[in-house]
Amino acid sequence: MDASNILRKLAVATNDSGSPFQEEAFSAAKRWSKLRQPQARAEIFDQKAKDNAACFRNNIESYIGTISIPVGVAGPLRVRGAAGCRDYRVPLATTEAALVASYNRGARLLTSAGGCNARVVAEAVSRTPMFAFNDLVEAEQFARFIDAHADSFTDVVSQVTQHGKLVSVRCLIEGNHVYVDLQFTTGDASGQNMVTFASDAICKLVLEHCPIVPRYWFLEANFSGDKKSTAKSMGHVRGKRVIADITLPRALVEQQLHTTPERMVEYWYAGAIGGVLSGATGIQGHFANGLAALYLACGQDVACVAESATGVTRLETSEAGDLYASVTLPNIMVGTVGGGTALPSAKACLDILGLAGCGKSTALAEVCAALVLAGELSIIGAFCSGDFALAHRALSRGEELQRSNDND
Amino acid sequence: MDASNILRKLAVATNDSGSPFQEEAFSAAKRWSKLRQPQARAEIFDQKAKDNAACFRNNIESYIGTISIPVGVAGPLRVRGAAGCRDYRVPLATTEAALVASYNRGARLLTSAGGCNARVVAEAVSRTPMFAFNDLVEAEQFARFIDAHADSFTDVVSQVTQHGKLVSVRCLIEGNHVYVDLQFTTGDASGQNMVTFASDAICKLVLEHCPIVPRYWFLEANFSGDKKSTAKSMGHVRGKRVIADITLPRALVEQQLHTTPERMVEYWYAGAIGGVLSGATGIQGHFANGLAALYLACGQDVACVAESATGVTRLETSEAGDLYASVTLPNIMVGTVGGGTALPSAKACLDILGLAGCGKSTALAEVCAALVLAGELSIIGAFCSGDFALAHRALSRGEELQRSNDND
Amino acid sequence: MDASNILRKLAVATNDSGSPFQEEAFSAAKRWSKLRQPQARAEIFDQKAKDNAACFRNNIESYIGTISIPVGVAGPLRVRGAAGCRDYRVPLATTEAALVASYNRGARLLTSAGGCNARVVAEAVSRTPMFAFNDLVEAEQFARFIDAHADSFTDVVSQVTQHGKLVSVRCLIEGNHVYVDLQFTTGDASGQNMVTFASDAICKLVLEHCPIVPRYWFLEANFSGDKKSTAKSMGHVRGKRVIADITLPRALVEQQLHTTPERMVEYWYAGAIGGVLSGATGIQGHFANGLAALYLACGQDVACVAESATGVTRLETSEAGDLYASVTLPNIMVGTVGGGTALPSAKACLDILGLAGCGKSTALAEVCAALVLAGELSIIGAFCSGDFALAHRALSRGEELQRSNDND
Amino acid sequence: MDASNILRKLAVATNDSGSPFQEEAFSAAKRWSKLRQPQARAEIFDQKAKDNAACFRNNIESYIGTISIPVGVAGPLRVRGAAGCRDYRVPLATTEAALVASYNRGARLLTSAGGCNARVVAEAVSRTPMFAFNDLVEAEQFARFIDAHADSFTDVVSQVTQHGKLVSVRCLIEGNHVYVDLQFTTGDASGQNMVTFASDAICKLVLEHCPIVPRYWFLEANFSGDKKSTAKSMGHVRGKRVIADITLPRALVEQQLHTTPERMVEYWYAGAIGGVLSGATGIQGHFANGLAALYLACGQDVACVAESATGVTRLETSEAGDLYASVTLPNIMVGTVGGGTALPSAKACLDILGLAGCGKSTALAEVCAALVLAGELSIIGAFCSGDFALAHRALSRGEELQRSNDND
Repeated sequence: MDASNILRKLAVATNDSGSPFQEEAFSAAKRWSKLRQPQARAEIFDQKAKDNAACFRNNIESYIGTISIPVGVAGPLRVRGAAGCRDYRVPLATTEAALVASYNRGARLLTSAGGCNARVVAEAVSRTPMFAFNDLVEAEQFARFIDAHADSFTDVVSQVTQHGKLVSVRCLIEGNHVYVDLQFTTGDASGQNMVTFASDAICKLVLEHCPIVPRYWFLEANFSGDKKSTAKSMGHVRGKRVIADITLPRALVEQQLHTTPERMVEYWYAGAIGGVLSGATGIQGHFANGLAALYLACGQDVACVAESATGVTRLETSEAGDLYASVTLPNIMVGTVGGGTALPSAKACLDILGLAGCGKSTALAEVCAALVLAGELSIIGAFCSGDFALAHRALSRGEELQRSNDND
Repeated sequence: MDASNILRKLAVATNDSGSPFQEEAFSAAKRWSKLRQPQARAEIFDQKAKDNAACFRNNIESYIGTISIPVGVAGPLRVRGAAGCRDYRVPLATTEAALVASYNRGARLLTSAGGCNARVVAEAVSRTPMFAFNDLVEAEQFARFIDAHADSFTDVVSQVTQHGKLVSVRCLIEGNHVYVDLQFTTGDASGQNMVTFASDAICKLVLEHCPIVPRYWFLEANFSGDKKSTAKSMGHVRGKRVIADITLPRALVEQQLHTTPERMVEYWYAGAIGGVLSGATGIQGHFANGLAALYLACGQDVACVAESATGVTRLETSEAGDLYASVTLPNIMVGTVGGGTALPSAKACLDILGLAGCGKSTALAEVCAALVLAGELSIIGAFCSGDFALAHRALSRGEELQRSNDND
Repeated sequence: MDASNILRKLAVATNDSGSPFQEEAFSAAKRWSKLRQPQARAEIFDQKAKDNAACFRNNIESYIGTISIPVGVAGPLRVRGAAGCRDYRVPLATTEAALVASYNRGARLLTSAGGCNARVVAEAVSRTPMFAFNDLVEAEQFARFIDAHADSFTDVVSQVTQHGKLVSVRCLIEGNHVYVDLQFTTGDASGQNMVTFASDAICKLVLEHCPIVPRYWFLEANFSGDKKSTAKSMGHVRGKRVIADITLPRALVEQQLHTTPERMVEYWYAGAIGGVLSGATGIQGHFANGLAALYLACGQDVACVAESATGVTRLETSEAGDLYASVTLPNIMVGTVGGGTALPSAKACLDILGLAGCGKSTALAEVCAALVLAGELSIIGAFCSGDFALAHRALSRGEELQRSNDND
Repeated sequence: MDASNILRKLAVATNDSGSPFQEEAFSAAKRWSKLRQPQARAEIFDQKAKDNAACFRNNIESYIGTISIPVGVAGPLRVRGAAGCRDYRVPLATTEAALVASYNRGARLLTSAGGCNARVVAEAVSRTPMFAFNDLVEAEQFARFIDAHADSFTDVVSQVTQHGKLVSVRCLIEGNHVYVDLQFTTGDASGQNMVTFASDAICKLVLEHCPIVPRYWFLEANFSGDKKSTAKSMGHVRGKRVIADITLPRALVEQQLHTTPERMVEYWYAGAIGGVLSGATGIQGHFANGLAALYLACGQDVACVAESATGVTRLETSEAGDLYASVTLPNIMVGTVGGGTALPSAKACLDILGLAGCGKSTALAEVCAALVLAGELSIIGAFCSGDFALAHRALSRGEELQRSNDND
């Protein structure tokens, strides 16, 4: 931040007649005057949107107001996480009928079985700059330089970020191009900006010292998996690799899902191979639904659903005739600080979970996995019992669902 | 809907003291009393959330209120679509700094070049029931039955849905399992429920008449690509396959993106192959960002970002030294009727676009493609000029961006 | 082949002093004189290689002789195919220890259970020319032209090939590029050349008549899946989609594989998900081993193993405690005429199978599937019983295998 | 090999009446007597096949003779490898018309441009055992045990193999399953058996000492990428990651390929995206053709073409108007000792290359890459000049090719 900016911000903060609130709201009003949509304006740029304008200034540009997305609550969802067992009420923001009802049903099933296990088993966010050379011989020399000097990158990272720690450096050569996979842990933040700034600093250090000069280079060249479902993340981690599992007693499956463990496993086969035949990455049903609703409620980057909604659901019958179920999510991008997490609605939703602020991101990732497990069990149950079409027909018409476990 | 349900709904509608509004709001209040989060309640369950409770009843269960997501506006975005040339102001809901600024910059670039072409080139939504048999011999016989009787399915579909039309039926056999790929057009709705109900009806017709009786079957078995980025959609279509392209004069690239067509193409190579090395489906940069923000603003199913954020970005230099750029999105799931599109905020945002209601879904898909093209050009430009880290650092701190084209 | 060529060939055949044998062998001898490797020459260019030189003239260029690859025989392999039940002795050419032993063990297992079912369930080979235009608008117009005139392509195909039949035409647009997926059946030939020539003729017809003139075009642009494992083939077909399945009595699994159906299914889960985690296409163990050995023995294009070794293996326990097993191979490229099938060794191996010549390619594809099923069961059995390392250690050292079922 | 085995083999070798030759040949003769195919027998079980029977005993079971595959020679192929610049004559075994001619053309193009660069940039072969537990909590504990004790595995590996070195150990957890990715270097051998035995020893060590006892485990569970094209190898290495590149002067492209660098790059775009649309792994044309022919000639495991024929081809125009071309092959499985490399034909072909025996496997991998680069340039050239159909028509009919550069 340069000096003039600091001055400008100080000025704004101390000037009564030009408070940040008024400045932002004023700009928004100007934009509306061009749009000429009075009804839309009334909905989007209501009093609260005006009042809160300033608090969004670090999270959006060309602000014109806010949209309202309905939130439902699912649970209690009992999670046996790294820090012990806990029941969560999970806020889910969506406009899709049946979504909350279905996750709620799954959450209650898990809870009635004593809760599911959940663990973050790996953690890293990467940036992957690319350096281009005249030929592969130079590329290989550059890669060797990186390998030899990777230890020295830690220092420069610590100057850029307090929370981001460089955990691995790996070069991957393609032709005369070198992709450098820089992996970081990012504390309780999702961390995408943090790793961008840290990588930028590393690249500049390398460029300053490396005798093999690239023809050109880019700070990020799409090998990181950012905003994409990738096999790379599936076989390693991006963000947090988090798993939830449970062994569900047969009786609970029969009572609550109206089907049997064997039928659930038959569905699993059908769906697993259906996904493989479609060329999907991973094996799963509808991770996207729960994750989108939870990310949205809790101020996470909802575009990350494109990468997070990937993984493996596995169902097996146990020798005792019970149902083992697990979900593995290699690419959960969540934080409890930074990004949109401090915005009013997000803060409220994180508070409902009891997961706002420092030291909570691991638990939030565990909730993601547990929720997704609930959703997989519920939808598979619905396909097995034949309730799927029925439930969607009823709930999308505002009818009551006979077999529902509404959260009341 | 059975008779008692109808009676209940009529009763509710006519009963002053038990109006739907009060019923929904009352339930929400009850849920809050259990959550014991007064501050969160004040944010989420504000007066507007209470007042609007009833209007969300077909879109959410276990309602507790609404969240507020900030909206910015990008544009004008000039689109040369199937119905002619038009300028759009595009509402984008997000909490990610720099997103609106970046899409805005791209939109203005496209517009200043006269606008991009956009076309929906294919259309279909599928459901893929699966039928299991004793062995592959039975499976093959069943598939032959389906092939022979597919013409008769049209009738039963027309009894279930006015807008959904069955456009193709194809069997895919794996072992003793038959996946039936039922493809529909869905009018101006996104259509996922519509195809569920229609497929249900087709399955029941088949089960009634087919002499080869399956051991078991499921209404959907994950071959449809629902909520997943798949190679199947990439090589065909899911929802709408929509493309945008443009040839950008070299001068505009230099002036507005501060780089050259050649450097942009060098980045494209780096990013395309970076994506391939990561095992992503398709070749693209950050489709997810723009799509998530637009879907969210316009009442689309934001979980569909998991499937929609897939496709191909292509950049080439032309013989004249200009920059050809295209994006191909095989899997855009949008509607301008149904789903969440009639909710107050979504309606307002669709109105800003001028795309609410019947006959507008093709144009909305064109806007998706044009927006995504804008975003790809802007981010690639930022990587090429070295502005990427700079812009994110500034905008996430609420600073002004020197080189920005803010939408004011 | 034009008239002068025919005359040249006739002349060569009847000219004593310039017989084809001498011509080809003479050229080979000249090449060896440059290589200066007398020992290698003795091995590669032995008397038989000299004698047979002429018969390879349509199958190789710059001929220097032949290599000898050892062949083993597996079986009997009982296949319940479309034309009835038959026992095959399967010639397998390989230099990998344990391969024949393992497939042999599996073949005998299938046979002792009464044989497996096998069926070709779909058939088509594609060529995919690509046409490039100024923009997507032209591309879409071109695609419409193709769609409208596809019926007229049949005639031109029939002028180029007797055996190739055009079965479908589909345009896929990406940016300003149109890929045309031309699918053919190819009689009993593998058919890759046939579809090349037919597609060439179609393209020329289109270029002659279509008012939208491409900027450039290519006869094949890599969308066909030629020589590659693709998701496209997985969800449809390339060559022949062929399936084999069987329900193995528990007792046979225990006696012959020294394990149980349950353990086999546990392995299947491990291997299926292991493959998914690795980002492989499909779910299978080692299709490549059996297919490479069979293709090689039978004069098939062994490079096609790259595409054929893709598919789905599925194992389930039945309610009765038996083991259901299937393999689905979407991309078997085999012929019993054309290519290398008439060469002496290939003809001999096809004769061992009883599958040389016209009308046999379907059965050959069924043998591929049955063989692959045998191999999957055998290797999974070895992993389950702990025999895998043991067997490879012994057989690669020429030791006897205690538990082997050698084919003597 | 233990002492008793050595004694047994020596005994056999010195016993006149029971020589290995007679033993193996006798068994083969017995098999033929069951097959009742005198003509096939004459071809497959000729005198050389009888004489050589014993030398195949460690490479095949149920031996019945040998097949003859024609070999052509391509080159000279000039490779600028890690050990300096060298010209190779490359033996290629195939029955596919046009293959040798096409690779030969490409090889001569590279050579006339001074040769291509080639380097092995990474090396490792993995085995991936899987251990199953009651729940993910146990799985995580087991993974931690492995991480903590990985250093101690080196010793046990050194007891099993001289040439195999353990280079990394990584756990990947999915549900309650732990995949352990054990990566080895394998000297000059391809090394698949070596890593199997070493992994077996590691697993047994772990099972002996680890307090967390798995419910069951398998020595290999399909995460290694063995015999499969995987994204895992694409983003890392399996076997050898080897790259070749060159900048071809425009004049050479025009003279030898009858096209321009620009048209070649246009083809590259078409083919790259065609492949992506088909859901292939990587971006390449026909790696499989050259690799299959070279592997087959040189005694490599030809089934490995399924995994090796994966990678990235990249073509760009340089500022000077020349053509940059590279191929990256992440998964080359070759050895110059062990496997089939010592068999007579393989030894002869390796001798033609000058690459038999110890210390040569790196150079053999470089030849693979250089050859594949030659093949990509040649086929792309053919598509660009319109020669593709022409060449295949002529060569598959034994006609002369006007534009060919036959190797005479």
